[in-house]
Amino acid sequence: MKKVIYEAFGNPADVLKVVEEPSKPLQSGEARVEVLRAPINPSDLIQVSGNYGVKPPLPAVAGNEGLGRVTEIAGDGIEVGQLVLLPAGSGTWVTEAVCPIRALVPLPEGDLDQLSMLMVNPATAHLLLSEFVDLKPGDWVIQSAANSAVGSYLVQLAAERGINVVNVVRRESAIAGLKEIGADVVLVDGPDLAKRVKDATGAKMKLAVDAVAGDTFAHLAETLDQGGTIVNYGGMSNQSARLDAASIIFRDVRVRGFWLVLWFEKATRDERMAVYGALTKAVAQGTLHAPVDRHFTLDDIAQAAGYSWAGERSGKVLLAPNGV
Amino acid sequence: MKKVIYEAFGNPADVLKVVEEPSKPLQSGEARVEVLRAPINPSDLIQVSGNYGVKPPLPAVAGNEGLGRVTEIAGDGIEVGQLVLLPAGSGTWVTEAVCPIRALVPLPEGDLDQLSMLMVNPATAHLLLSEFVDLKPGDWVIQSAANSAVGSYLVQLAAERGINVVNVVRRESAIAGLKEIGADVVLVDGPDLAKRVKDATGAKMKLAVDAVAGDTFAHLAETLDQGGTIVNYGGMSNQSARLDAASIIFRDVRVRGFWLVLWFEKATRDERMAVYGALTKAVAQGTLHAPVDRHFTLDDIAQAAGYSWAGERSGKVLLAPNGV
Repeated sequence: MKKVIYEAFGNPADVLKVVEEPSKPLQSGEARVEVLRAPINPSDLIQVSGNYGVKPPLPAVAGNEGLGRVTEIAGDGIEVGQLVLLPAGSGTWVTEAVCPIRALVPLPEGDLDQLSMLMVNPATAHLLLSEFVDLKPGDWVIQSAANSAVGSYLVQLAAERGINVVNVVRRESAIAGLKEIGADVVLVDGPDLAKRVKDATGAKMKLAVDAVAGDTFAHLAETLDQGGTIVNYGGMSNQSARLDAASIIFRDVRVRGFWLVLWFEKATRDERMAVYGALTKAVAQGTLHAPVDRHFTLDDIAQAAGYSWAGERSGKVLLAPNGV
Repeated sequence: MKKVIYEAFGNPADVLKVVEEPSKPLQSGEARVEVLRAPINPSDLIQVSGNYGVKPPLPAVAGNEGLGRVTEIAGDGIEVGQLVLLPAGSGTWVTEAVCPIRALVPLPEGDLDQLSMLMVNPATAHLLLSEFVDLKPGDWVIQSAANSAVGSYLVQLAAERGINVVNVVRRESAIAGLKEIGADVVLVDGPDLAKRVKDATGAKMKLAVDAVAGDTFAHLAETLDQGGTIVNYGGMSNQSARLDAASIIFRDVRVRGFWLVLWFEKATRDERMAVYGALTKAVAQGTLHAPVDRHFTLDDIAQAAGYSWAGERSGKVLLAPNGV
């Protein structure tokens, strides 16, 4: 079997390497899974760089989500041939995984790319829309990094609930893709964003969702209604968030953060089931999806990491450890 | 009578001017008050500069709090000679004020300087400690601008409740004054603040209170415990607040703003009575006080505004419209 590991934190294109080792025999209660797809999320690369909220002990196996097919079992509870989601954070950039059977989530058959992205981004988009502000049909939300996977899911989930979204991107070339998935308002970020949002919508935003930080954070905050909330879930600009004191004081703007890891720690089993039950169904049926740019094999991990981080993509980059 | 007015928004030292006009006759239900003290708060000057959350119609009379003695009445409810607090935001930088009797708050006799500052800063300090985080004895709070009037009140109110405070100032010379009023930990702001706070206290902060914004905001946020809150109530650095995305996302740091004007709008009469009842008693008894730097007359308003804004003060600057 092959796996992508790192023995030191640093630039992913430099520190990630592929190692080959014999398959492990199964212990009782375990299953062997042939890994078919594993997304490269920005948070995976930030974790490798050492700038993430938790640091794994080194050496570590990279990757935090993915899916595969059960090829061997040593116990009950799952069948050989079953499509399964790998446990979150289990080191998924591997050709095969050995996992406790009870940690595997059975999936309906469907689009492997879309199903493999189920754990992190659709849940993030769903929770960004539900955990912070009580949104009603007709309310307005603004998001940056709107052409990201989370951004695409958020557009679809908001539309389903009758919530309006202003989508902010950093380059003109990202507009068309968002229009294709049904986004109404798409604007390129800039210092006059608040004015252009007002011109385009005539509305004040109840919620702002940001994954860029830097000046973008201040621009989004300026569009908020009195008492509105801005939630940050990423720092793609690699800059600190900027925020005018006047927004905080006079307009009572509130800032919160979202990290899926913390949500998992606090959520009850019922809460997790409720979120993932609906999302699994929607993804399997194809009503909830994110654009995919291309696939890489494990052997090309350095190139894949560099390509994934560069940003000029048209969708998510996925690993196909056993071929497309 | 004399009053300080401004006919345009701008630099207070430039646009504030003293005008003289005849005293107005009283209407039924009104009282005339000889104004004895009126503080110059930073928010008063920001309002004159045009950068405040609300802009008064121009020309406007400056000043938002103060006290005086009743010299004439046209109705019941107050006696001539009674010491009173002027209504909030009523244009208090005047030698005499004509007010509705029911809007005057009778005060016990006491230190005129201290009583004149009752409306804005003690209430701000009290509410910063009570409206955002449920603080228990032994908990830690960090504040910037600790040598401000609000900062001094916060030190005293926290001590009364057994809450520990790390006081952050921008210059060495401000440390002694804070030690004199009983502050335990006083540190000068800098990029390594979080480390020095940890060394000095061994504790994580539950609440950070900031009136500076800029880099100070990020430094305070770094000292917060998981899920801690930073409340901003001023932007004395004239810079946007800076905040690392990692603090927001991984440590779940929350940002809120505080503006006394908004609290007044939302608070019930009972809530206001509860806050001001206790504060009035403490200030009148001398157990709650703020340092005073010096007094100016109305005629020297340009100099007073410049001096008050410069920052190198040892306490609040007060106007004594009818002499000290």
